Amino acid sequence: MIIHLKSSVSPQEAARLAADHQAIHFNDGSQEVLVLSAKIKEVPGTLQSLTEADFPTDTDIQLASKSYQSKLREITIGEVTIGGDTKNTMMIAGPCSVESQEQVDEVAQVLKKLNVKTLRAGCFKPRTSPYTFQGLGEEGLKILADMHDKYGFNIITEVKDSSHVDMVIEYADIVQIGAKAMYDHSIGKRCGQTKKPILLKRGFGTTLQEFVQAAEFILSGGNPNVILCERGIRTFETGTRFTLDLCGVAFMKEKTNLPIVVDPSHAMGYRYGVADLTRAAIAMGVDGLLIETHPNPAVAKSDAAQQLDLDEFQKMHSTLQPIAQAIGHTLI
Amino acid sequence: MIIHLKSSVSPQEAARLAADHQAIHFNDGSQEVLVLSAKIKEVPGTLQSLTEADFPTDTDIQLASKSYQSKLREITIGEVTIGGDTKNTMMIAGPCSVESQEQVDEVAQVLKKLNVKTLRAGCFKPRTSPYTFQGLGEEGLKILADMHDKYGFNIITEVKDSSHVDMVIEYADIVQIGAKAMYDHSIGKRCGQTKKPILLKRGFGTTLQEFVQAAEFILSGGNPNVILCERGIRTFETGTRFTLDLCGVAFMKEKTNLPIVVDPSHAMGYRYGVADLTRAAIAMGVDGLLIETHPNPAVAKSDAAQQLDLDEFQKMHSTLQPIAQAIGHTLI
Amino acid sequence: MIIHLKSSVSPQEAARLAADHQAIHFNDGSQEVLVLSAKIKEVPGTLQSLTEADFPTDTDIQLASKSYQSKLREITIGEVTIGGDTKNTMMIAGPCSVESQEQVDEVAQVLKKLNVKTLRAGCFKPRTSPYTFQGLGEEGLKILADMHDKYGFNIITEVKDSSHVDMVIEYADIVQIGAKAMYDHSIGKRCGQTKKPILLKRGFGTTLQEFVQAAEFILSGGNPNVILCERGIRTFETGTRFTLDLCGVAFMKEKTNLPIVVDPSHAMGYRYGVADLTRAAIAMGVDGLLIETHPNPAVAKSDAAQQLDLDEFQKMHSTLQPIAQAIGHTLI
Amino acid sequence: MIIHLKSSVSPQEAARLAADHQAIHFNDGSQEVLVLSAKIKEVPGTLQSLTEADFPTDTDIQLASKSYQSKLREITIGEVTIGGDTKNTMMIAGPCSVESQEQVDEVAQVLKKLNVKTLRAGCFKPRTSPYTFQGLGEEGLKILADMHDKYGFNIITEVKDSSHVDMVIEYADIVQIGAKAMYDHSIGKRCGQTKKPILLKRGFGTTLQEFVQAAEFILSGGNPNVILCERGIRTFETGTRFTLDLCGVAFMKEKTNLPIVVDPSHAMGYRYGVADLTRAAIAMGVDGLLIETHPNPAVAKSDAAQQLDLDEFQKMHSTLQPIAQAIGHTLI
Repeated sequence: MIIHLKSSVSPQEAARLAADHQAIHFNDGSQEVLVLSAKIKEVPGTLQSLTEADFPTDTDIQLASKSYQSKLREITIGEVTIGGDTKNTMMIAGPCSVESQEQVDEVAQVLKKLNVKTLRAGCFKPRTSPYTFQGLGEEGLKILADMHDKYGFNIITEVKDSSHVDMVIEYADIVQIGAKAMYDHSIGKRCGQTKKPILLKRGFGTTLQEFVQAAEFILSGGNPNVILCERGIRTFETGTRFTLDLCGVAFMKEKTNLPIVVDPSHAMGYRYGVADLTRAAIAMGVDGLLIETHPNPAVAKSDAAQQLDLDEFQKMHSTLQPIAQAIGHTLI
Repeated sequence: MIIHLKSSVSPQEAARLAADHQAIHFNDGSQEVLVLSAKIKEVPGTLQSLTEADFPTDTDIQLASKSYQSKLREITIGEVTIGGDTKNTMMIAGPCSVESQEQVDEVAQVLKKLNVKTLRAGCFKPRTSPYTFQGLGEEGLKILADMHDKYGFNIITEVKDSSHVDMVIEYADIVQIGAKAMYDHSIGKRCGQTKKPILLKRGFGTTLQEFVQAAEFILSGGNPNVILCERGIRTFETGTRFTLDLCGVAFMKEKTNLPIVVDPSHAMGYRYGVADLTRAAIAMGVDGLLIETHPNPAVAKSDAAQQLDLDEFQKMHSTLQPIAQAIGHTLI
Repeated sequence: MIIHLKSSVSPQEAARLAADHQAIHFNDGSQEVLVLSAKIKEVPGTLQSLTEADFPTDTDIQLASKSYQSKLREITIGEVTIGGDTKNTMMIAGPCSVESQEQVDEVAQVLKKLNVKTLRAGCFKPRTSPYTFQGLGEEGLKILADMHDKYGFNIITEVKDSSHVDMVIEYADIVQIGAKAMYDHSIGKRCGQTKKPILLKRGFGTTLQEFVQAAEFILSGGNPNVILCERGIRTFETGTRFTLDLCGVAFMKEKTNLPIVVDPSHAMGYRYGVADLTRAAIAMGVDGLLIETHPNPAVAKSDAAQQLDLDEFQKMHSTLQPIAQAIGHTLI
Repeated sequence: MIIHLKSSVSPQEAARLAADHQAIHFNDGSQEVLVLSAKIKEVPGTLQSLTEADFPTDTDIQLASKSYQSKLREITIGEVTIGGDTKNTMMIAGPCSVESQEQVDEVAQVLKKLNVKTLRAGCFKPRTSPYTFQGLGEEGLKILADMHDKYGFNIITEVKDSSHVDMVIEYADIVQIGAKAMYDHSIGKRCGQTKKPILLKRGFGTTLQEFVQAAEFILSGGNPNVILCERGIRTFETGTRFTLDLCGVAFMKEKTNLPIVVDPSHAMGYRYGVADLTRAAIAMGVDGLLIETHPNPAVAKSDAAQQLDLDEFQKMHSTLQPIAQAIGHTLI
């Protein structure tokens, strides 16, 4: 149950009402908003005279639901806008990890040439073993900031736990919450306090319901700029690294008002399928793609098997715009 | 290990050699062929002088593997050809079950108008409960045969167990082996004895390796016309009926020489995602699509939630050719 | 909805009523029984005067449900009885495949010494590749029949498709329907026409609901002697062969009236875990265990990694009776 | 590759060597230890003269592997010791969440009477929705500390993200890292700096390999007291909440030197199966059980369906010691 309070209700009073009703309270720019449990189907008596509008919801997918806001949310990052009526599909590309200034610059030059506007690379790596490369940390963030300054890219990079969330928010244009950090409410709540766009990756063992509910932690903190990212779920099939869940993408398009990005690189785990899956996602009309590309995948410090080399990336990229256009979209 | 025997070896001698080496033997139209376990990496001594060519394979994906035959197999059904160099994508459509002559005819007229050439409907339904509609059986096959005669459709229908495999082979232009019957070797072997194209559906709990190995039961019986069909696997995600495994489609395109059909209807389980997933599959360059459509899904005797009505089907169909063309394919 | 018809209703009239109401009809030894869809919650008007008793059910788990018959079914095979009030746990053991008379006899002697009464081995093997050992067929069945005659064992062996179901029913004391054949209604219906006990294995991609519904195909054919067998499901975890679903065993104990057997050998896939999982299943109070043991697993023609050798089997067996007794059961 | 350095090597020199070889360094109480990538199979030349002993490992399961230390680790918490040669099985019980002093005290009295020594309840709840009860936080920790002081319980409670890890370490006798926090390296590293026992729960989408590797983050920080907890994985089966992976328990017993606790409550999700699964786990010889029990489950603020009431808990508890004894264990 989402309640828009009347403009006569002060923020202080709204906060007090929230406490009384075990609700979450934030100001969405236009009004004070309360969000109560979805189990509550009618406006409580004591709130009725203070309520401007109310939106009952079926489940705890509330702020993200089409039943609250039927129109796709529009999100602007620098010169790039996705969602809303734009029919834009944003290409995000870059290496899995920042390894050096030279490595990132080499990728950046190719992306710049292709007019890709969003550069992605990781600095804090959520590896499954302590005995492997863990990322360059803040040194990597500074390299990415240089790329922003030098070429004008929007920068997206990952936060993997709450110890460095402030640092990532400072440097990044889009903050990626990694698949393994998706359930971390400290990150979610902290990201709710900024207005920077948040790209939330689905955990590989996470249901669609839980995934979108994780976005509610950010949205209910007051940040309306959340992007959902499908990156493959873990199934019995191990011939590929994960299983890209495009049925899930269809589900999210149907049920939510959040833009959707697809990451075929992590799902596939092998470069041979990445181009095909990218084309598939574009044909579905998603709002963005996230593709890993590296100057020399064979020596990459992480995810070596799945990163396209720069030639492969360019070759793939040249095939995408016609598909986008066939469904009335524009690849940016 | 696949061995092409020299033309001097008679079929009888080939059969004897097969028995001696625990191999499977068939004639592929050009020569006598033996298939031994993939664990055998060198031609056995006693066969060396009789061997024209040999093809070691990594796994028991042998006849279907690119390492045996790198080129995509070409399959012709009536006036339709897929695979090979055709770059054709075949549209297969129709109701889940044959319910009556009128119901099928109503669908058939729409498909005919759209120039869809392949009509699909089930007569033997592999239901999970004995207390639900089990299909019309041979009566249904006769209705489909009428559609073939009246409109010229290629007919595809499902065999669900070996008790009626002969009957289905007789009536159908393409024999569908259902997902639940995929491991049934009696069906596989029987289908190896015909030349009719076989559309083999992946079991929803079946790995890609096992799936393609199931095709080997048919191929090694001497029928080269096998089509693989991805129709969704069972995962932890139950917000959709199954999870369409397009990573798996990429795997099969990379590793096998068999044409691939995608069935988004069964994967999704809800009509709202079917059009998007169809577009995704076409953009991957698959060889066919299998879509359920029914004059009145609300009263369908099976799979009511996922069947498009005829208007929805036509609306979707009108969006597909541009996507096919964007990747150089033709929808037929 | 299950309906017990009044004794005044003849079998012929019952059959006619079944046809009229799209119901399944059989005689359960005491009365004519109709089973209608579970969606029907009230006795149809035309049947009311003919109905002795009626049992509405929540789902199409009907004859197997505790809401129809709350007491565990009792099943007798030769001198062995399980279920009912017996608190017996039946040990079933033997090699994966019948490979030769000598191999089976060597196992049989050990089992006889341990007072194990039920011998299991496969003759028709549902292998995933056509290029591996497919079983001895009827020759194997004859070897098993010899063991029955020589030592008095109950024999259990697997039917993998409907082409040989009659043959297996003739030779076996318990007919095993394999995990891959579980959805084969021809087998299910044929097994409904005998009174021989049927051990139905859960498909590795099969939900509990579907699994028990598969038993309904047999029960509604008139055979009350169905045993459910949990043998591991396919999950993302591939460090072990399958994942033994003991939560599922708890579910079936709670919801159904059918005896339950657990097969830890196929679930684990490695001999090292089999003894521990066997002890776990016994402590749950299951009605039987199915364990693979082979005189020389290293040379076994199938499932080499998971079969215990005869010493390992004996060592494990010596630890089981105390656990059974700790929960008031007897291992037989 | 684990290297025990000679006693002549100072901690400072060891730290320098670690940096040179991209290794992790800690003192295990007896010696300076380096852990290099498992890919390194031979002691690097520059380290050879400084190496007392070396332990190559197959995978990045290193410190936890039987190939490094074959004997089960012994861990003492207050008066309770598990692992080593103890053959003890530790009962851990309590409500899902601390809700009030009275609620916890009511549970504590029953546990005290049954001689259960370890009390568990959550204060920071990793809920999937922001609109539900999130736990009492430090107020809850203080209630648990009271129970420690009043009754002498060992207290176990959960850390869900790194924002409150210090606080939980301060209050708890055993720190539980929750399933959703398992990949959080900040928590793992912080827990490596204490000697308090850490109970690490397996993520429900986590492979066994990844799970044990997560323990390596703690072990390689210098804390040898890590307990693994299996609590169910997410599979296609949704008739139960999760699927308890006892095959995985067998795997961990075989491959690792860490004590293992099983949590049937979260796996099952329904109280009806908890007792049976508890008995199963005890019969496997695990080192501990974690059972949820609540004075009035119907009004519990989280996990209402799966918590035993206090009568059910006592009834179950009375059945466990005989099973433990049947395998030579003692329930404590």
